[in-house]
Amino acid sequence: MKHFILKTAPLILALGAAPLFAQEAAPMSQDSANMLWTLVAAVLVFFMQAGFAMVESGFTRAKNSVNIMMKNLMDFSIGSLGFWALGFGLMFGATAGNFIGTSGFFLSDAAPGKQGWEWALVFFMFQTVFAATAATIVSGAMAERTKFSSYLIYSIVITGIIYPISGHWAWGSLFNGEGWLEKLGFIDFAGSTVVHSVGGWCALAGAIVLGARTGKYGPDGKSKAIPGHSIPLAALGVFILWFGWFGFNPGSTTTADMSIGRIAVTTNLAAASGAIAAMITAWLMLGKPDASMALNGVLAGLVAITAPCADVSPFSAIIIGLIGGILVVLSVLFIDKVLKIDDPVGAVSVHGVCGAWGTLAAGLFAEKAYSGNAGLFFGGGIGPVFVQVAGIAAAFVWAFGAAFVLFTVVKATIGLRVTREEEINGLDIGEHGMEAYSGFQIFSTEN
Amino acid sequence: MKHFILKTAPLILALGAAPLFAQEAAPMSQDSANMLWTLVAAVLVFFMQAGFAMVESGFTRAKNSVNIMMKNLMDFSIGSLGFWALGFGLMFGATAGNFIGTSGFFLSDAAPGKQGWEWALVFFMFQTVFAATAATIVSGAMAERTKFSSYLIYSIVITGIIYPISGHWAWGSLFNGEGWLEKLGFIDFAGSTVVHSVGGWCALAGAIVLGARTGKYGPDGKSKAIPGHSIPLAALGVFILWFGWFGFNPGSTTTADMSIGRIAVTTNLAAASGAIAAMITAWLMLGKPDASMALNGVLAGLVAITAPCADVSPFSAIIIGLIGGILVVLSVLFIDKVLKIDDPVGAVSVHGVCGAWGTLAAGLFAEKAYSGNAGLFFGGGIGPVFVQVAGIAAAFVWAFGAAFVLFTVVKATIGLRVTREEEINGLDIGEHGMEAYSGFQIFSTEN
Amino acid sequence: MKHFILKTAPLILALGAAPLFAQEAAPMSQDSANMLWTLVAAVLVFFMQAGFAMVESGFTRAKNSVNIMMKNLMDFSIGSLGFWALGFGLMFGATAGNFIGTSGFFLSDAAPGKQGWEWALVFFMFQTVFAATAATIVSGAMAERTKFSSYLIYSIVITGIIYPISGHWAWGSLFNGEGWLEKLGFIDFAGSTVVHSVGGWCALAGAIVLGARTGKYGPDGKSKAIPGHSIPLAALGVFILWFGWFGFNPGSTTTADMSIGRIAVTTNLAAASGAIAAMITAWLMLGKPDASMALNGVLAGLVAITAPCADVSPFSAIIIGLIGGILVVLSVLFIDKVLKIDDPVGAVSVHGVCGAWGTLAAGLFAEKAYSGNAGLFFGGGIGPVFVQVAGIAAAFVWAFGAAFVLFTVVKATIGLRVTREEEINGLDIGEHGMEAYSGFQIFSTEN
Repeated sequence: MKHFILKTAPLILALGAAPLFAQEAAPMSQDSANMLWTLVAAVLVFFMQAGFAMVESGFTRAKNSVNIMMKNLMDFSIGSLGFWALGFGLMFGATAGNFIGTSGFFLSDAAPGKQGWEWALVFFMFQTVFAATAATIVSGAMAERTKFSSYLIYSIVITGIIYPISGHWAWGSLFNGEGWLEKLGFIDFAGSTVVHSVGGWCALAGAIVLGARTGKYGPDGKSKAIPGHSIPLAALGVFILWFGWFGFNPGSTTTADMSIGRIAVTTNLAAASGAIAAMITAWLMLGKPDASMALNGVLAGLVAITAPCADVSPFSAIIIGLIGGILVVLSVLFIDKVLKIDDPVGAVSVHGVCGAWGTLAAGLFAEKAYSGNAGLFFGGGIGPVFVQVAGIAAAFVWAFGAAFVLFTVVKATIGLRVTREEEINGLDIGEHGMEAYSGFQIFSTEN
Repeated sequence: MKHFILKTAPLILALGAAPLFAQEAAPMSQDSANMLWTLVAAVLVFFMQAGFAMVESGFTRAKNSVNIMMKNLMDFSIGSLGFWALGFGLMFGATAGNFIGTSGFFLSDAAPGKQGWEWALVFFMFQTVFAATAATIVSGAMAERTKFSSYLIYSIVITGIIYPISGHWAWGSLFNGEGWLEKLGFIDFAGSTVVHSVGGWCALAGAIVLGARTGKYGPDGKSKAIPGHSIPLAALGVFILWFGWFGFNPGSTTTADMSIGRIAVTTNLAAASGAIAAMITAWLMLGKPDASMALNGVLAGLVAITAPCADVSPFSAIIIGLIGGILVVLSVLFIDKVLKIDDPVGAVSVHGVCGAWGTLAAGLFAEKAYSGNAGLFFGGGIGPVFVQVAGIAAAFVWAFGAAFVLFTVVKATIGLRVTREEEINGLDIGEHGMEAYSGFQIFSTEN
Repeated sequence: MKHFILKTAPLILALGAAPLFAQEAAPMSQDSANMLWTLVAAVLVFFMQAGFAMVESGFTRAKNSVNIMMKNLMDFSIGSLGFWALGFGLMFGATAGNFIGTSGFFLSDAAPGKQGWEWALVFFMFQTVFAATAATIVSGAMAERTKFSSYLIYSIVITGIIYPISGHWAWGSLFNGEGWLEKLGFIDFAGSTVVHSVGGWCALAGAIVLGARTGKYGPDGKSKAIPGHSIPLAALGVFILWFGWFGFNPGSTTTADMSIGRIAVTTNLAAASGAIAAMITAWLMLGKPDASMALNGVLAGLVAITAPCADVSPFSAIIIGLIGGILVVLSVLFIDKVLKIDDPVGAVSVHGVCGAWGTLAAGLFAEKAYSGNAGLFFGGGIGPVFVQVAGIAAAFVWAFGAAFVLFTVVKATIGLRVTREEEINGLDIGEHGMEAYSGFQIFSTEN
């Protein structure tokens, strides 16, 4: 452990040499406070990886749980290295025409002695867990039929290239760059678009290129419900995500100031109203308060409030979450029954659709009174709604387009999907040679 | 993300314009520090919702797990809105005769520009997760037979009305009010009575009005053990609760000062001795070290130390937890076998009985040396034991009485209990139309 | 709740008497900041107990899950009391010949009024969760066949005596003492040796004295795989451990300064590269990307970076984790197939072997540029590699030797192992009289 601080302690205790109150006089610097808060927030956001793993596993079948755990574990692991080597530089490096970052690869900007190098490292830590979130979203929509090796390849492309480039457009100025979207006054405080929509649109492309799970749509094209194997696991995952979101949104200040509390309040109220709205909507449309819809309602509210969380009133947050909760149910049913795209966990609806809604809501509900200062937004004021729409559209075109090309290339080369036989027997045996629940009696046919 | 801070970073790194050490000079304000600590603590307490969900689900049958997850999810969601609209004002608003708060509904006191409005918002966040804890306690005692729609109704009444009113008596002065109990010098630092006993007595009323689960008591009135479906889930829940309690107790300072560490120490030692005492007691009385008793022993120790945590020595904390651990085992057996009240998870014993014990212990063990300053308590000193007893009694009369009326009214109107058939088939199918563990082979008859 | 601070709030809000910005002027002291950070870190490390419980349970059979939960619950509970009574004094008390601490038992050094007593209490809290980690490691290697009562006895000896004594050698000077290893310039920032190797070598001794699980090795001596009952539970545990490690390593500064962020970065990168390296190694050696190997790879990377985390570059961290990830797979196979020692969860490989590797790596990769200041190490510089080797060897001789004697004595007296029949039926029924998964259809024979 660190010596200088700890040597102090014995002196105080044993000899009482260093008077405590003299020490007390030494104030904490705001820099150290920002460091502490940004790190604590990053740690909370990291834990969302566990939440995503539990949600995806709980909402899918037991025979694919090992595979889902491995995908969540590896996309974060590979993503951490990919973002260190490439992504961080593309997102926050010196800008090339406000479109792409071009420096800071391999953390070269954060060498000891350089001004602010330690701040750069905690900022990298915080941005790494954000990047990994975008990648993880994709695995849910492509669950239960994707080749593991292919997954590893595209997850690094998403974390290392696709996510950072659009991220540079909106957040590049956070470091050396300056993005074209932020120059227009685009508002996305914590990433409804930058993180969630981008992940959601990549997921949509993946689900389309991959095709539906065997047996999901009957010969008549009718959608068949494939129930998840553990609602308690999924619920635990949602609680963990809610918990982690208190790092995701308030932590995006990267500053330990007086605004973090109110950002937590808007975040929490939106999640709560999202859960209630989704439950009621499902109750009315499906006849019963469906648990998976209510759980997705929490995530819908959280995703929706992510962009406007720092700039809206608690009351506006409730409205934003409420609309998100209704939207996610309608979107899940629409994508499943009308578009007939198989998204096992509803990732496209939660992250793509509600991310777009939240970004629009930032334009509709943001109030200067909550913004802290007029300089909060690059336009020196509240960005007009059309800029929000432009940002939503740009993210969709880029993320969906790039991911569609990526998945098509992977499919045409090493292949994207496991064999029909492997899919039926489960990816746990096929891809990893092991069972998730060894010793438990499980219906081999369906689950 | 916030602009002003983040714009600083690139300058530092790229241009080195803003010298880091100049920045270092800027000190963090104590207000920002209190904000940071109170928010971090609130986030830890929020996560206790996941702990309660896992404990309640683990200690009950698989056929009711979806229902328990939904109840825990919705009581927090509805509770968050109820506390925002009504509860916060009733608990912390300007007092009417030291009995009830009358202002600050819908966070009207926390509008931008008002003095301390941002502090008010984080304080609201912290109080929201406390209020939700009280409501969640009830769901455990009423598990496996309560109508979901009825649960939604009474959970909002508890969070929105019952909890805040007695809360005002003990904690009203934290904001605009001033409660009659605190005027007497009542000690309840983090809520053994205000949160846990109130929740426990509401749970007792609910369990009585609701009646036992079908098959719990034989025709001869003999109690039959109904084992929970997942001890690992229950154990995970207890670890999460223990984790969250480090926000619950030390966070109740709402101040980032030197007292938070010692409060964590008393909290941890009481939990540890509670676990050991409960295990040994169960070992002696039941012949084996029962896991559910040991797990409840942790919670017993935590609930008991909640009132005195800031004002007792580590050694006293061990005694307080130890007695709590013995008490919870005796209470669980007494309520089950003698009173024949069916409390599936032992919520009344853990929160009601041990909450009362902890509140009494605050009067018995509190030492000025640990109180920080003589002004800690409203009486300007340590409140006499009779005041503690008065507080315990007042909380029981109010919470049990009000909840009894509430549950009786619900029972007489929309009904409180599901049909016998639905109970036997499980509430997951009946109330939510889905299974918790789809694909797993589960004995349909008993579990 | 605390009065003085909370009384302020209403004044601000209701009367606006205390101007907020006047308050803002009051700076936070560095002491309070260190208190806050050390407590938050301790809380994260506490949660690792849940992680260990989930990993050990998930990697073993369902019939022993209650037992594993109880062991993890009780070693922390008993360990907390044992470290309070004995361990803390032996580890951090006034030194006797730089070999053992001799004061501060029962927290006698932390009485109110003594200089720095509140700091001493949070430092005790942080050290308690460290001590409990060492004890928990052992339960994994001895899972599925150890008598519960014997476990309770040896877990208190490890936390109360074995761990603190070697801990004094390396970290004694953090308080009143001064250890002989630190005098030589031994580097172990957060405990690759002090915590993990010591736990791992105790585990090795236990596994040897205890012998293999029934059926683990055939009559021909061939090793038979005994699959764990829940990979999702094990994966959740690993995510929780990763999460908690952000308290374990950055928290070991016990100072809220600018170094905590970069320590989190090295910690995270090593965990990520450990996971990838272990997965690839297993893929090459076993033909498939085995999940349990990848999960252990994360832990291998984390254990390896624990000693050097504060003193190496991010790039070095990746190398250190990578080698750890390869090492853990080779070690698990070697111990299982060559040495034929039955370690159900690979605790010896993860904590013992990778802990030794990380301690060596601290000598090989540490750079002054990252050390913060030249006074970081007791030699006033980077300790030479032979000192690292000496520390690794000393820890092995002491921990393995002392634990071997301990387990041999326990075996010869009250007995260490359950009966063959109890082992086959499962320890949950035999030791605790209950099932972990009541109601689930489980193959009674093997699992």
